[in-house]
Amino acid sequence: MGGDRGSGPLIDGAVQAVEQHPGIEVLLLGPEELLRAELAQRGKGAETRLSVVHAPQTVSMDEAAVDSVRRKKDSTIMVGFDLVKQGQADALVSAGHSGATMTAAILQLGRLKGISRPSIASVFPTLKEPVLVTDIGANVDCRPQHLYQFAVMASSCSELLLNRAKPRVGLLSIGEEPGKGNAAVKEAYDLLKASSLNFIGNVEGRDVYSGDVDVVICDGFVGNIVLKISEGLAEAIQQMLKTEIKKSLGASLASFFIRPAFRAFRKRVDYAEYGGAPLLGINGVGIICHGTSSAVAIRNAIKEAAKMAECQVNAAITRHLQQEVVQA
Amino acid sequence: MGGDRGSGPLIDGAVQAVEQHPGIEVLLLGPEELLRAELAQRGKGAETRLSVVHAPQTVSMDEAAVDSVRRKKDSTIMVGFDLVKQGQADALVSAGHSGATMTAAILQLGRLKGISRPSIASVFPTLKEPVLVTDIGANVDCRPQHLYQFAVMASSCSELLLNRAKPRVGLLSIGEEPGKGNAAVKEAYDLLKASSLNFIGNVEGRDVYSGDVDVVICDGFVGNIVLKISEGLAEAIQQMLKTEIKKSLGASLASFFIRPAFRAFRKRVDYAEYGGAPLLGINGVGIICHGTSSAVAIRNAIKEAAKMAECQVNAAITRHLQQEVVQA
Repeated sequence: MGGDRGSGPLIDGAVQAVEQHPGIEVLLLGPEELLRAELAQRGKGAETRLSVVHAPQTVSMDEAAVDSVRRKKDSTIMVGFDLVKQGQADALVSAGHSGATMTAAILQLGRLKGISRPSIASVFPTLKEPVLVTDIGANVDCRPQHLYQFAVMASSCSELLLNRAKPRVGLLSIGEEPGKGNAAVKEAYDLLKASSLNFIGNVEGRDVYSGDVDVVICDGFVGNIVLKISEGLAEAIQQMLKTEIKKSLGASLASFFIRPAFRAFRKRVDYAEYGGAPLLGINGVGIICHGTSSAVAIRNAIKEAAKMAECQVNAAITRHLQQEVVQA
Repeated sequence: MGGDRGSGPLIDGAVQAVEQHPGIEVLLLGPEELLRAELAQRGKGAETRLSVVHAPQTVSMDEAAVDSVRRKKDSTIMVGFDLVKQGQADALVSAGHSGATMTAAILQLGRLKGISRPSIASVFPTLKEPVLVTDIGANVDCRPQHLYQFAVMASSCSELLLNRAKPRVGLLSIGEEPGKGNAAVKEAYDLLKASSLNFIGNVEGRDVYSGDVDVVICDGFVGNIVLKISEGLAEAIQQMLKTEIKKSLGASLASFFIRPAFRAFRKRVDYAEYGGAPLLGINGVGIICHGTSSAVAIRNAIKEAAKMAECQVNAAITRHLQQEVVQA
């Protein structure tokens, strides 16, 4: 209910998910009457794999995360993560307030054993295979141990969810040499070096989009800036290039020749193609989608959530942490 | 002498600068014999506004900044900043080791009164006018007071060097609201809010390229990542778009129609067009250029250095800090 475009694209995405994936069942969370009316409008009733769970409250985008979640026990995210806790759902997908979604997940499900700070991961397109970047905003001030935990979580996620064998893990810094970076990064380097992860060392900003690293680790302040600067720059470059192409070809020729290429490019870099951002480190599965997600983005996020529950990323994370403790 | 392409483009850039700008005189720093031979090759001798100063040592890119500068008193950057100190030069331009150049500047010239951490600024292209971003790598761990000082320095630089009236200063963070950001950014917000700068509040990653802010403030860790991720992403997007355009138009048509537009785009975003990165907060003028700078980039950096010395950015910074202290 909390997305920027209302419940429409979310319901459409859910309908698409159950229609296209026979193994997926979706519980729609929100005010029951409203959801039933929306489903009826789409000619849908009590479908076998599409049902409604009453959750009358919504956390809006401008509320404080912790406060709103504590106050609104009947909000979609609190009710949804409770279903996950009770084993009545395998995963929750939300296009609402990401901070509140993370808070609700921690309150209802708790953290995985050995994880002090759950993080949010995001899949970025690159010149080769997509890269998983974490944290993209949950933890602004991080200690070295947190960065190490992000790496363990993201490596398991990359391996199982994105099918990478021995994911190459890089630590985002300002030089490739071990001594480069801020205080937290320098110490995290040593922790990662000593771990059993496939740690390839520091990576620089320019390596994120090269496709030569599978997992990029940073604190949530840096990660969020990386995410948003990329969105802003991609938009700016497209505008600048379009302007130049129109100048050299003329507007109508440019439109005819170039529009399909720009459309294909946008599809290639569109977050909607990659589903949502997995929450890592909570004792269950949660996926956060962009507030402006389309039905396709929601459908892909639901599919991704199902896969993440099935491939048991959390069990792999816990196993890895236990083994490293045993070795240490 | 310390650039990645040897002395060739630096000498060519210097020759262009004196030939195109009658008000500019250039002293070339390096091994005298080598420089004289290079000049002779270009048919240049003892020109009025082009001379050679003997500096036999070079700091190479892989040396430790502080150590190399302390050891090599006769290196180009140490000799050059000494000339600035003695009043025999108004500014130094270097395409060598940026850390060593900054260290040499601080050793020879000292910091401006009221500045505890000099920073490096960089001019980024945007959809409108270019934006000045600092720090892009000199200071990885910053206190709020340092960020405030960066803002004072960059605001004066934007006003005088880039001709912006009342530059809009933004603090790079992960949300527009005052409470967003890491610990240092939250405190810096209050300092900037209380200052006489035209502080427009937090800006997000996506605002950097919009052109709606003139100065963006961040620590050197974040700034360096922003710089390098932008370079990497711009390159990746161009490659992806070219691939799509070739797919839709065919390679030869694409090449014919689109190459001029991509060339124009690259010219628009090329750092060479913007000169180099000004050192802010040292008691003199220094400009750092990309190690791979072309002759045009060097020429523009020399022009920029001359303008920066002429418009007295340092005097403006000192004046601003004194006034704020008086007011506080």
